Amino acid sequence: MPASPIRKLVPLANEATRRGVKVIHLNIGQPDLPTPQEGLDALKNIDRQVLEYSPSEGLLSLREKLAEYYHRFKIDVNAEDIIVTTGGSEAVLFAFMACLDPGDEIIVPEPAYANYMAFAISAGAKIVTVPSTIEEGFALPPVEKFEELITPRTKGILICNPNNPTGYLYTQKEMNQIRDIVKKNDLFLFSDEVYREYTYTGAPYISAFHLPGIEEQVVLIDSVSKRYSECGIRIGAIITKHKELKKNVMKFCQARLSPPLLGQIVAEASINASQEYMLMTYNEYVERRKFLIDGLNRIPGVYSPIPMGAFYTVVSLPVDDADKFCEWCLKEFEYEGATIFMAPASGFYTTAGMGKNEVRMAYVLKKEELAKALKVLSEALKAYPGRTD
Amino acid sequence: MPASPIRKLVPLANEATRRGVKVIHLNIGQPDLPTPQEGLDALKNIDRQVLEYSPSEGLLSLREKLAEYYHRFKIDVNAEDIIVTTGGSEAVLFAFMACLDPGDEIIVPEPAYANYMAFAISAGAKIVTVPSTIEEGFALPPVEKFEELITPRTKGILICNPNNPTGYLYTQKEMNQIRDIVKKNDLFLFSDEVYREYTYTGAPYISAFHLPGIEEQVVLIDSVSKRYSECGIRIGAIITKHKELKKNVMKFCQARLSPPLLGQIVAEASINASQEYMLMTYNEYVERRKFLIDGLNRIPGVYSPIPMGAFYTVVSLPVDDADKFCEWCLKEFEYEGATIFMAPASGFYTTAGMGKNEVRMAYVLKKEELAKALKVLSEALKAYPGRTD
Repeated sequence: MPASPIRKLVPLANEATRRGVKVIHLNIGQPDLPTPQEGLDALKNIDRQVLEYSPSEGLLSLREKLAEYYHRFKIDVNAEDIIVTTGGSEAVLFAFMACLDPGDEIIVPEPAYANYMAFAISAGAKIVTVPSTIEEGFALPPVEKFEELITPRTKGILICNPNNPTGYLYTQKEMNQIRDIVKKNDLFLFSDEVYREYTYTGAPYISAFHLPGIEEQVVLIDSVSKRYSECGIRIGAIITKHKELKKNVMKFCQARLSPPLLGQIVAEASINASQEYMLMTYNEYVERRKFLIDGLNRIPGVYSPIPMGAFYTVVSLPVDDADKFCEWCLKEFEYEGATIFMAPASGFYTTAGMGKNEVRMAYVLKKEELAKALKVLSEALKAYPGRTD
Repeated sequence: MPASPIRKLVPLANEATRRGVKVIHLNIGQPDLPTPQEGLDALKNIDRQVLEYSPSEGLLSLREKLAEYYHRFKIDVNAEDIIVTTGGSEAVLFAFMACLDPGDEIIVPEPAYANYMAFAISAGAKIVTVPSTIEEGFALPPVEKFEELITPRTKGILICNPNNPTGYLYTQKEMNQIRDIVKKNDLFLFSDEVYREYTYTGAPYISAFHLPGIEEQVVLIDSVSKRYSECGIRIGAIITKHKELKKNVMKFCQARLSPPLLGQIVAEASINASQEYMLMTYNEYVERRKFLIDGLNRIPGVYSPIPMGAFYTVVSLPVDDADKFCEWCLKEFEYEGATIFMAPASGFYTTAGMGKNEVRMAYVLKKEELAKALKVLSEALKAYPGRTD
C-alpha cells in the first residue's frame, strides 16, 4: 500500500514542534468542538460489571436509535437494515470486502478521500477515477465520463456527499444521473454521507436512499464521528436493504466479533443531542467557512471554490508543487513562531499530475487559529522559492 | 467466506430461548467474571470534552504500560514495538495483511480458532493445516509434518499458545522445534498468546519472544479481552521488532485512523488490576476446569484431555456427527427446561472428517451452570438417536 503524501509530512510536523514552532493543523478532520453532553453523560453513567462483547451487528437499541435518526432525513430504513461498524472506516472496508472480488472495479469521482484507495487495495479491488476539477468547482463529471469507464468488472460507483475533500454537494440533477448509471448497469452505489449535517447553501442534501428505483443497490456509509465530534469512539454503520449483501457483510462482522461496546453507548446517547448543540456546531462551521474562504481568496494567487458542505476545501496555490510547498512550510518556514500543516491534494487524486498546485484544508479550528493560519500562508507564499506567478 | 457451523446454530439457540428453554452457553469465550475495578473506575473518571482520535498506533501511555506488563513475563519489548489494535481480531487481520501477499501460505496446527481462516481469506492468503489429534492430547504434530508442507509460498507459521480451542500449552521442546523450522525457512512466527495468564499445570508458558535467534520474525498477537474480562472494549495489539513489518502494519492502522479511545483508557487502567483480582480469576478457572473435565470424563463414552491452559477444551462424544448432535440439542432436546449450546469442532478443522465427533466447550460459566450443563449433556447423550456406542 503506498504511503500518502500527508503521512510523509507527519514526522516533519513533529520535528517542527520539537523546534518550538507552533504547527497549525489544517490537515485533519478532527473537530475541536465538544462531544454532546448527552454522550459524555452516558459514559459517566455506564453501570456494568462486565464490559462484554456486543452483538456483531451492533446493539439493537443503537440500531433502532439510528433508524429514528435517519427518519429525520427522510431516509426510510429500519434497524434490520443497519449494521454497526468500528468507525466509518470499517464500514467502507467491509462494504468493499463484501461486494467486490479481487479484480473488480469501482468508479470514484476524484479528488476523493485517500483511504478509499487503501480499503479497495485491501479488498483486492481497483478504484477507477473520474477527475473533477477546481475550475468546474468540483461538479460531477459528465455522465459520459463514467460510461466510458464501465467494464464487465465494474461493480459500483462510490460518492462522498457532502464531499471530503472538496466540500461539494451533489445536486438533484447530478444524483439523478448517478442513479441512472447505477440502474442501467446494475451497479452498487456506495454513498458516504457522514457530513450530511453540514450543508450551507440552502440546497437540499440528497441521500442515495432518496433515489427511487435503486433502493436495493445503495450501500450507505455512515459514522457518528464528525457530527458529534466523537471520532475516537469508532462507531460507524453500513446501511443496506440488499439481503444477500447484508449476510455477506455479517460474515466479516462476525469474524471481528463485535464493534466497540463503549462507543456504541456514547453514540446512542449522542443521537439525543439537543437542537441547541446541533445548531451551535452548525453555526460555528458556517462562520469558519465564511472566514476561511474569504480570507483565502483575498491572498493574491490563491483560489478556493466556496464549499457547499462538510468542513473541507480544496485550494489552488501559486506554487510549483504543493507537496513540496507543504513540506517546505513545515521544514523551513515559520512566521511569528508558527507554521501550517496542510494536506497536499495529490493524495486525493490518482490521475498523475492532477492537483499538483492544490491543498486540502479542514476548518475545524477556532477563528483565531484560522486567522493565524491565513497570515502564515500569505507570508509563506511570499517567501517560498517555487512560487509560480 | 464460508459460514462456520457455530453460526448456523445461533438462530436455533434464539429459537430455543423463544420457546422458553434455558440455553446454557458453552459455545463462547466471553468470561462472566467482572472487569477489574481499576478499569471500571477509569471509565467513570474520563474527563474529556472531546472524544477525539487517538494516534493510529495507540496511546503512548497504553503502549508503555503494555511494555511494562510484558516485562513481567520476561518478554523484552518496549513501547516502540507495540501497535494497539481494535481487538485481537484486528491484530490477526493486520498481521496477515501486512505479511502476506495473495497466494501466500501459512501453516497452522489444527484444530484452530476458526476466525484465523476468515482473516487469511481477507488477506487473500491460504491457511495450510497440520492436524493434531485428541488421541495425542493435541500435542504439536511432528516437525516433519510441517516440513512437508513448506513451499516457496509459505510465509509463516501460526500458533495459539495456550491454545484455543484445545487448551494445549506448548512445551519448551515443542517451541524449540517451532523456532528451528521458522529460523531454517526464514518464516514469520505468528503467535497468539492472549491466554497467557491461564496455565494450570505448573509447566512454564513459553512466549514466542522467549525463543532466541528469531526475535525479528516473531509477530505476537495479544488482547486484553480475556485476561480482564473486557471483550467489549476491543483492545488488542501486534508486537513486533521487525521494522519493515511495523511500517507495513502502520499503513493499515492509518487507513482505519485509530483504535477505540475509550477502550484504550480502560485497558491501560486494567493493567493495574490487583494481584487479588488476577488470583481470583485464575483460581476460578482452575476450579471450573477441574469440575468440568472430571464431570465430562465421568459420562460414559465422553472423553476430554486435561487442558493445560486457556478456558476451553475439545471433547469427543459418542455420537455419529457432532454438528448434528449440537443442532439436535438446540432443536429437539431439553432436560428440566434447559439445553446446551456447544461449538461443533468441525469448525476448527479444515481437514475433511477431522473432529467429526468432537465439540469445543468454554468454561466461562459458574460451577452451578457447568453442573447443569453436564447433566443436560449426559441426558442428551442417552436420548440422542445417533449415538454410536
